This record gives sequence, structure tokens and C-alpha cells, in this order.
Amino acid sequence: MTLTIAELARALDARLWGDGSLIVTGAAEAGQAGPGQIALATSSAYAEKLAPGGMALLADGSDPEALGLRAAILVARPRLAMAGLTRAFDPGPGIAPGIHPSAVIDPGAEIAPDAAIGPFVVIGAGVRIGAGARIAAHVSIGAGTVIGRDALIHPGVRIAHDVTLGDRVILNPGVSIGGDGFSFVTPEKSGVEEIRETLGGRAEIRAQHWTRIHSLGGVEIGDDVEVGANATIDRGTIRATRIGRGTKIDNLVQIGHNCVVGEDCLLCGLVGIAGSARIGNRVVLGGQVGVSDNIFVGDDVIAGGATKIFTNAPAGRVLLGSPAVKMETHVEAQKNIRRLPRLYAQVAELRETVKKLLDKDARE
Amino acid sequence: MTLTIAELARALDARLWGDGSLIVTGAAEAGQAGPGQIALATSSAYAEKLAPGGMALLADGSDPEALGLRAAILVARPRLAMAGLTRAFDPGPGIAPGIHPSAVIDPGAEIAPDAAIGPFVVIGAGVRIGAGARIAAHVSIGAGTVIGRDALIHPGVRIAHDVTLGDRVILNPGVSIGGDGFSFVTPEKSGVEEIRETLGGRAEIRAQHWTRIHSLGGVEIGDDVEVGANATIDRGTIRATRIGRGTKIDNLVQIGHNCVVGEDCLLCGLVGIAGSARIGNRVVLGGQVGVSDNIFVGDDVIAGGATKIFTNAPAGRVLLGSPAVKMETHVEAQKNIRRLPRLYAQVAELRETVKKLLDKDARE
Amino acid sequence: MTLTIAELARALDARLWGDGSLIVTGAAEAGQAGPGQIALATSSAYAEKLAPGGMALLADGSDPEALGLRAAILVARPRLAMAGLTRAFDPGPGIAPGIHPSAVIDPGAEIAPDAAIGPFVVIGAGVRIGAGARIAAHVSIGAGTVIGRDALIHPGVRIAHDVTLGDRVILNPGVSIGGDGFSFVTPEKSGVEEIRETLGGRAEIRAQHWTRIHSLGGVEIGDDVEVGANATIDRGTIRATRIGRGTKIDNLVQIGHNCVVGEDCLLCGLVGIAGSARIGNRVVLGGQVGVSDNIFVGDDVIAGGATKIFTNAPAGRVLLGSPAVKMETHVEAQKNIRRLPRLYAQVAELRETVKKLLDKDARE
Repeated sequence: MTLTIAELARALDARLWGDGSLIVTGAAEAGQAGPGQIALATSSAYAEKLAPGGMALLADGSDPEALGLRAAILVARPRLAMAGLTRAFDPGPGIAPGIHPSAVIDPGAEIAPDAAIGPFVVIGAGVRIGAGARIAAHVSIGAGTVIGRDALIHPGVRIAHDVTLGDRVILNPGVSIGGDGFSFVTPEKSGVEEIRETLGGRAEIRAQHWTRIHSLGGVEIGDDVEVGANATIDRGTIRATRIGRGTKIDNLVQIGHNCVVGEDCLLCGLVGIAGSARIGNRVVLGGQVGVSDNIFVGDDVIAGGATKIFTNAPAGRVLLGSPAVKMETHVEAQKNIRRLPRLYAQVAELRETVKKLLDKDARE
Repeated sequence: MTLTIAELARALDARLWGDGSLIVTGAAEAGQAGPGQIALATSSAYAEKLAPGGMALLADGSDPEALGLRAAILVARPRLAMAGLTRAFDPGPGIAPGIHPSAVIDPGAEIAPDAAIGPFVVIGAGVRIGAGARIAAHVSIGAGTVIGRDALIHPGVRIAHDVTLGDRVILNPGVSIGGDGFSFVTPEKSGVEEIRETLGGRAEIRAQHWTRIHSLGGVEIGDDVEVGANATIDRGTIRATRIGRGTKIDNLVQIGHNCVVGEDCLLCGLVGIAGSARIGNRVVLGGQVGVSDNIFVGDDVIAGGATKIFTNAPAGRVLLGSPAVKMETHVEAQKNIRRLPRLYAQVAELRETVKKLLDKDARE
Repeated sequence: MTLTIAELARALDARLWGDGSLIVTGAAEAGQAGPGQIALATSSAYAEKLAPGGMALLADGSDPEALGLRAAILVARPRLAMAGLTRAFDPGPGIAPGIHPSAVIDPGAEIAPDAAIGPFVVIGAGVRIGAGARIAAHVSIGAGTVIGRDALIHPGVRIAHDVTLGDRVILNPGVSIGGDGFSFVTPEKSGVEEIRETLGGRAEIRAQHWTRIHSLGGVEIGDDVEVGANATIDRGTIRATRIGRGTKIDNLVQIGHNCVVGEDCLLCGLVGIAGSARIGNRVVLGGQVGVSDNIFVGDDVIAGGATKIFTNAPAGRVLLGSPAVKMETHVEAQKNIRRLPRLYAQVAELRETVKKLLDKDARE
């Protein structure tokens, strides 16, 4: 895609400086930009790397003239401008318009006329696919599933039956939506149930087979949700597993059956949320965070990387550690652990001193 | 599927109350049941939500008459009844009978006459597929692999060559069975080998390339095993990686080459078991648990979420923490860490007091 | 594959003992070898299990005559010999030569004449596939992507557009290369940005929507890299995400956008590396290790299983724990935590003793 730098500035709702007629064909890091590329120099450290005579995206307050540029776009929040800039030049995954002749589509499915369906796609009975949706190669969609308008489903995604995806949902390659929940029961009370009641004690260990609880509920995913490559969201047992509007889910995240995740959350890579957990709105979970089953995590909770949440977390709390505690408590605990060698030495010295006092006392 | 509530009670081996001729078409949570749906009210909290005039699944000792129901099924262990109830109404993934014409099947493969093979499936030479097995779209099966009776292979599953799956095995979407083991060697002793011997010390750091040890062993998976979406089980080096009968494996679990996992285990989401580890029978590993390579975990071990098992674990032990310790030891250690601020204050005060005693002692 | 034991010894650059004309058809563990199979007895414990009259791979210094063998191969570093031995007998994934007629290949793609392309493969415009490359069933390759010579791409791999793979790269089943980076921005400063600045404090919690930063950069993967099943490597924002030559990546590993991973690294199962992290050469990360975004991990760092690296790590360091510290510091800290009950008892006793001394002092 090509546009003038003046058009780009307008698209970013930003201020143009210099020659607005220059053509922009792409973006590059500062110092890496070739002809036609706009260099990203959103901090002064990057600005130093700029070659004179080119184009750049700069933070407000920079001086494009002093940098010797021919044209520049000046923005108040550079990271936000990156969103618009990268959107302008993203070629996307290249799914040809129309329905590829190799696709196997149930005659009862309803495909919007302008939806694009790639090679070897399999679509089941009663599926409905919204206007502008793009379904890449090797995707399978089970019976009764609904895909919203302008959805983008990357190659090899697995969507089971009775799933609902909102508008503009993006599923990256290999995502699985609607696999069976991990839900089993033993005829007698199992060892796990016993330990949860006794906090560690066990009466007697018995043989136990696991009987499957089937997953009849589907999955409901709101508008503007994105899911990363090879992430998995299981179907609910009776009612649907639900992901709220605007929530972004990273690669290799696992969301168990019956979970309810709120709106505008960020779940980073390798997060695991066990069955029936409820996550509030605007919750941010760092990479490899774990949430136990049946736990409630309140609105606006932020958990740092590798935090393990075993108990309910109140709204707004900032969590860290395993088990998760308030961030400041975790930082304090780590400091206390680091200071232990000194404490051991002090106590040893105290014991020695007190022993001497006692000995002296005894002698007197 | 539809059946009368009397038939359903009989299928669950449970007691019927009220009008057994009512037709049940599905299940719903208490307070959510529409016409034809049986409400699940397996605790008194749920029972309060029941609308009068309907059908419900109740725990023994409930009073369906007082709840104003028209019919009810009363069960001793409601969670177990859920297994039968959900099985009765599960439509499954909808794989059409017969072999889809698009499937690419080696002429040397043996497919049982009533097996179902979906679109775009690829089956290699010498593969044998048992009676009643269902293979969904986009599955690939390597040469010489054997799939048991009534197996259910969901879309996009990857089964490599020389793998054996037992009867009634369920593989959820995107599972990979029989990928290459992660096994490499350096011509000279590597830094990792040195550190394992010295517990942290390193003589000299050298350049090192990794040479691949190929995986000649396959994978053997017992009857009634289930594997969750996008989970991976690698093939063995010389002998097969093995998963015992009845073991259930959740989404995104990684099982390394040469591992031997026993029977009736539960491995929850994002568990990682490194190469050549041996796991006993009825072991339960919570979400994100890790097991080091070459470790032995005894029968009936239960490890809480995020436990990291670096050393052998004796049979029956309940583990928690990283590194894993007995659950009560972990709970005690956490308590001790939480109490440290008080300990630091006490020691500071003691030092002050003893200093005063010493000073006084010196003055006397 | 079959060869004589003399040929095998020559291939392994190892010493032959006994009858070199015996035919070897495969390998087995000591005590499990059938006719034609060479038994692996690389330690004395295994050598004890050998049946007389057979063939074995032995460590230098073993006495094949005393073990009653007919032929043996003697090697200095048995684990290294395993590499050659297993390579000799690996049948590989069985991808037929030529291009399967079902493959959908853009007319603008360049496929080397001897490359093998399996069933239902989809290849985009401008793709180049090197000599000897093998692409298994159900693989999709986006526009402009380059695959090196002798690459082996297992079934169901997803390679997006503008990705470069070096020679001899191996991608196991279900790998995703070039999915969108997990990169979002809020119009106003987000809660996460605020907490990073204040280390836990939050002024005011506001509603916030996430705006997508698109990923224009591709992925560049060096020669001899291997990637395990269902692992994911995201594309960069502006420049490419890069993996250096010879690096081996295990199953279910997540590598974020813009990451630069060096040469000859080992990244074990379920490792997560957040966006824009830089990893040096010869770095070894154990299973479930996490690396925060924008972190630098120096050359030759080794991190034990489940280590969580939140801050830069200097070259050569051996790390353990969460948060990661030097291995010896971690071991010491664990010991200090285990000894806490005794410390608490000592301090309690000291307080008692000092109280008595004070009381006595007051009485005097």
C-alpha cells in the first residue's frame, strides 16, 4: 500500500511537518529506513539514529528541521500512532475473495455473499458466516456455529459446534475453540476432593477410574476479541464458556470449561485459567499466570508474569508471586528472604552474647 | 436427542419422582431451564433458583413436591449423575458415516467398515483403524499407526508414524502425537551436563553445537485415554513413550520422549513432563505443574497447581510449591515467610535490649 | 534400513569388535533386542542386561568378549554415538516425492524440482521452496515466504507470509510461525504502564479499550533450527523476529514479537519469551522458564526448569527460581527458608531468656 505522508498524517490525526507530497510505502526502525519508508523515532534515543533527508514519525516536541528531515509526522502518544501506522501498511494474510472450490460446505450453511473462504475449509450444517468475514485455509467449523461480521480466521483454526464469535474477532493459526472440557468424576469421592477438604490429609488411597462429564455448552466470544496462535478455549458443561467484548488473548493460553472472562482483558502467553473461574473486566494477566478453578478475579486486577492465583482476588488489586499476594507484599517478602543470612548471623551472635550474660549471671 | 424423564432416570440408575412421561430434550442450569429442559439443582443453593412446574435433577434428600416440580430425578452423588446426563445429550462433533471422498488413504491401510473418515484426512501405509472409530476433518495419520475401536479423533489432530492408540481414545483438536523428541547432544560435555555435576559451577564456557538424537520409538496410548486440545506427546528414542489406560490429559500439556505415564492419571492444563520421566498410577498433577526429566513420581501422588517437581516423589505424597515439597511443609513455609516482618522486629528489639544489658553490665 | 555392523561402526566413526558382517536392522534397549537389533548398553548397568550372542553398542573400556557378544561397536561418548545410530535408522515422516495433485500452489511460487509437497498443502504467491525440502500434509505457507534447502515441515504447520526459514530447518507438527504479535495500546496511559512506573501504585482506575498494533515484520529463522510441536513464534512489529542458527526449540514454546534469539540455544518445553526480549548465544532455558518482555539474557546463560527471568541476566550466569537469581543464591535461600522453624524457636527462647535477665536485673 502506498500513500502520501500528508494522507498518513491525516489518517493518524497527527501534525505534518515538511513536504506532504512524499510517498510512503512502508515503515522501518530509525536508521533502517530505505527509500519510501518512514522511520520510527518515537524517543530521542531513536531520533539520534535518523539519517538526514528522510521521513520520520516523531514525538511532539521534536525538531524535524534540526534532524535534517524532508518530512515528519508529530504525535502526542507515539505508541498509539504505531497502531494506526501499522494498520495502514498491513497486507494481511492474503485470503482470496470468494469461496475456494475445494472447500466442503454443508448445504445448510449460510455464508454472507462477500465472505472469503479459503482452500480445504470444512463448514458444518447450520453454520452462519457474517459479511466481510475471511476464513483461511484448513479451518474447520462445526455445526450450528455463528461467525460475526469482518471476522478473520487464520489457517488451521478449529471451531467446534455451537460456538458464537462476535464481529471483528481475530483467531490466529491453530486456535481451538470449543474442545471438550476437562471434567471427570469418580464413582466414589476422589483423592483430590478429599485433600481439598482436609488440606492435605488422606484417609486411604483407593483405585479410582475417571468418568467423563460431557460438555454440552458451547463458547460465546464477544466483538473485537483476538486469540493468539494455538490457544485453546474449551466449551462449557451446561452453559457456554464466555469471553467478553474487546478481550485480547495471547498464544498458547488455556481457558477451561465454564470460565467467564470479562471485557477488555489482556491474557498474555501461556496463561492457564482452570474450569469455572470468573475473570472481571479490564483484568491483565502476565505471561504464564495461572488461575485455579472456581476462583473469582475482580475487575481491573493486574497480575505480573508467573503469578499463581489460588484464591479470590478483589477488584483493582495488583498481584505477584506464587501464591499470589499484593505486589508490595511480594516485594517485601523477597527482600526479607534475601536478608535472611544476616538475620541468621544476628541471632547466632545474640545467642552467644546472651549465653555469656547467663554464664556470668550464674557465676555471680 | 429426546427421551422421557423416566428413561433418563433409568439410564442414570437413579430414583424418579413425579410424572415419568415428560419429554426431556436437554439440560440447563437451575433458573435457566426452558421447556423440555431438566434443571440441574444439585445443591440447596441451586434448588432455590428452580422455577415451579418444571423438571430437575436433585440430590437425595431434596423435596421435589415442596419445590413445586412436576418431575424430578434424585441421585446420591450429583456430580456422578452429571456424567450420565451429559453423555445422554451430547450430539458429538458430527462426523458423517463412511469415508469422505476427499480423504487421501494409502491403499495398504485397513479401515474398519463402520469407521467414519472426514474430509481431507490423510492416512499412511499400513495404518489400521478399528471398528466404530471416527476421524474428523484434516487429521493426518502416519504409516504403521494403529487406532483402536470407537476412537474419536477431532479435527486437525496430528498422529505420526508407528503410534498405537487404544480403544475409545479421544484426541481433541490440534493434538500432536509422536512428534520428534527434544533430544540433542554436543560432541564435548555440554554446559548443562557440567552444571548438573557441579550444582552450579562452570569451568570454562565453550562454543557448542547440538547434534540431534532421532526418535525411533513410537507412542503407545492405552484404552480410554483422553488428550486435550493442542497437547503434545513426543515419540520415544528407542522404545515407545507410553500413556496408561484411563489417563486423562488436558489442553496444552507437553509429555516428553520416553516418558511412561501410568493408569488413571489426571494431568491438568499446561503441565510439562520432561523426557524419560516416569509417572505412577492415579497421579493427579494440577495446572502448570512441571516434572523434571528422568524423575520418578510414585502412585497416587497429588500435586497442586504450579508445583514444580525436581526430585523423585514417593507414592501417595501430596505436593505443593516450587521446588515441590509436602503440602503441609509448603503451607508452613509460606506462613513462616509471612511472619518474617515480625521476626525482624523482634530480633532488632532483642539486639537493642541485649546491648543495653551489656552496656549496663560493663558499667557495673 | 539395513546395514552391516561394520558399516554402522564406520558411520559412527567408532571401533568395531567381532563379526562385522552381521546385518543390523534396528536398535533396542539392552535386554529388549530381537534378531537383527543392536542393543544399547552405554553404561555398565545396561551391559548387565545384555543377552549373550547378540550385538551391542558399548562404552569404551567394556569387554564384549566377557559379555558373550558376537559383535560390538565401542564408542568414547555413547550419547553422541546415539545421534549417529538413530539417524541411520530413522525412517522419517514418509512424505512421497513430487507434488501431490491435491496441493493448492500459487502459480507465482517457485518449488525446487526435487522438493516434496504433501496432500492438501497450500502455498501462496511468491513463495520459494529450496532443493530437497519436504512439506508434509495440511501445511499452509503464506505469500513471499522462503523455505531453505532440505527443510522438513511436518503436518499441519502454519507458516505465515514474509517468513524466512534457513536450510535444514525442522518444524514439528502444528507449529505456527508468523502469527500476529500480541501488541496493543490504549489511547490513554494504561494501568500496566502506570504500575511499571510506580511499582504497584495506581492513581485511578479507568475504562480502557485496547487498540491493535499490527505486525508488519516477518520472522527469520536460521539454518539447522528445529521447532517442537505446537510451538509458536510471532512476527515482528516493524523488523523481523529472529531465531539464530542451530537453536533448538521444544514443544509448546512461545516466542513473542520482535524477540531476537541467538545461535545454538536450547529452549525446553512450555518456555515463554515475551515480546522484544533478546536472548544471547548458547542459552539454555529449562522447561516452563519465562522471560519478561524487553529483557536481555546474555550468552551462555543456563536457567533451570521454571525459572522466571524478570531482569537482565549477564553472560554465563546459571539461574534458578522465581524471580530468577544465581543458582547458589537460590539454593541458599531455600535452605534458609527450610531452617526458619528452628530460627523462630531460637528467637522465642532468646526473648524468654532476655526477659528473665531483664526481670532479674529490675529486681536487683
